[in-house]
Amino acid sequence: MGQAIYPKMAVVGCGLIGSSVIRAARQAGAVGEVAVADAKPEHRARIADLGLADTVTGDIAEAVRDADLVVFAVPVLAMGEAMKAAAPALKPGVTVTDVGSVKGSVAEALQEAAPEGVFVIPGHPIAGTEQSGPDAGFPELFQNRWLILTPQERDDAPYREAVARLTAFWTALGSNVEQMDVRHHDLVLAVTSHLPHLIAYNIVGTAADLEGVTQAEVMKYSAGGFRDFTRIAASDPTMWRDVFLTNREAVLEILGRFTEDLQALSRAIRWGEGDKLFELFSRTREIRRGVIAAGQETPEPNFGRDHRQP
Amino acid sequence: MGQAIYPKMAVVGCGLIGSSVIRAARQAGAVGEVAVADAKPEHRARIADLGLADTVTGDIAEAVRDADLVVFAVPVLAMGEAMKAAAPALKPGVTVTDVGSVKGSVAEALQEAAPEGVFVIPGHPIAGTEQSGPDAGFPELFQNRWLILTPQERDDAPYREAVARLTAFWTALGSNVEQMDVRHHDLVLAVTSHLPHLIAYNIVGTAADLEGVTQAEVMKYSAGGFRDFTRIAASDPTMWRDVFLTNREAVLEILGRFTEDLQALSRAIRWGEGDKLFELFSRTREIRRGVIAAGQETPEPNFGRDHRQP
Repeated sequence: MGQAIYPKMAVVGCGLIGSSVIRAARQAGAVGEVAVADAKPEHRARIADLGLADTVTGDIAEAVRDADLVVFAVPVLAMGEAMKAAAPALKPGVTVTDVGSVKGSVAEALQEAAPEGVFVIPGHPIAGTEQSGPDAGFPELFQNRWLILTPQERDDAPYREAVARLTAFWTALGSNVEQMDVRHHDLVLAVTSHLPHLIAYNIVGTAADLEGVTQAEVMKYSAGGFRDFTRIAASDPTMWRDVFLTNREAVLEILGRFTEDLQALSRAIRWGEGDKLFELFSRTREIRRGVIAAGQETPEPNFGRDHRQP
Repeated sequence: MGQAIYPKMAVVGCGLIGSSVIRAARQAGAVGEVAVADAKPEHRARIADLGLADTVTGDIAEAVRDADLVVFAVPVLAMGEAMKAAAPALKPGVTVTDVGSVKGSVAEALQEAAPEGVFVIPGHPIAGTEQSGPDAGFPELFQNRWLILTPQERDDAPYREAVARLTAFWTALGSNVEQMDVRHHDLVLAVTSHLPHLIAYNIVGTAADLEGVTQAEVMKYSAGGFRDFTRIAASDPTMWRDVFLTNREAVLEILGRFTEDLQALSRAIRWGEGDKLFELFSRTREIRRGVIAAGQETPEPNFGRDHRQP
């Protein structure tokens, strides 16, 4: 294992992602002491039971005191307040990062509240599941997944060193680390994550509200495709509300493209333009091959789930 | 095993579904002799290599001669021609069924071409994967999946017996069999299968055609949600073209609902109506629980795929 990358890590918000960071960091020997701050008493009780941290508290300032790395893993709109609560207790030279799905608003909120001498390096692991809470985390979550850092525009040596250290940390947890401009991150993620969630939430809502087809029928016959959408539509409601409220412009822009394309597809169906449909349906097959080749998906049919059922 | 339910079965079109029917029926001892007709020489060669059938031919009439059960497993728009080719060779008392995803147009096409004394009982297994061809099939595909029969409106004893026999056949293959009105089937499946495929094809197409985000980025960061959609957007293009061309009205009706809901959601984002978003995102979680409780989905996070990757 060698020496820990950060002698003390504080995690603020210990749900699926926060608890996975702790599990992965401990397994990799990347941290020494671990402190957790979580607002929910029931989470704190579980975190204590699971033995995830040396300190478990509801007080953010207490958790971050003396920490070398602070990871904010709360919903995007809660980042600013959490940072304000932490600020007075941060030690000079500490690295502050986060795991939020939107980087523009978070980078701003963290930076605004940061005291002098603190290295703010926003981050985002492209990993997760549809489950929530400290029990949902696991140490392999970041294996072979991308971690995007959106460093500030400064190139003094201490900051560069802090970025290199945080990169080493995430690499130790199994991630492939990339750097990206904040605005570009928010556009790319609007496409690969935010729009898919919006569409999934929407289609599941539509299917639940029909008069000619019952909810029981929708569930019963869901293996024809619908069930795939229910997975991401089961993701944490608070987290996702915040994503759409803070990445509004990019999401609406991409949603506009999607809607245009859908209208064209609808028209092709109405007019019986089979060639257009066939052309699109052939092209999209290639994208899946690309996703599998990029190591971001299993090649097994039906995600392999059919062979695991009782 | 006891006696076969059908001494001879003919399967016309031996791709994912056709070859799975054969594998499952043989494993269950539900059939004796098996004949296959497939239009593609390369499929016929694979079917012979795999030892899936006693007879493999390109001639539909030859395959269905003396068969007690004929299963049409070709794309929906090819059903009528296949039935016409089979008709002169069908023996009296044979049961003719299919596995098409749309029942209205198929039921009509089969019935029109059916000679006197043939029992036409359209059917649809709510099962499948995104893969195609005879190598993609497997015997467990229908286990614990629904099979919908849409029998004709006739209640003479011989027809009722033929329906009971076909029900016993699919039950032996692991399916739960239900009967449904043709029009209701096409509406229910428009919701649970056709719209999800349309949306998936569309979003994958949209993501492939952006100027600000490259295809490589879309693939690389797909684990944020996008990858789920690529699975069903990798399904057979011919099959799905035919589904949209033949179930046009129901698909456009459901698509209209989806689009309305999406406009409302878009508006809620634009105006920052967090409560509306939170309410929808909480409701959709329940639907997933229902799908899992209905035995149509694995409860494992991320479909269980993350723990299976290399």
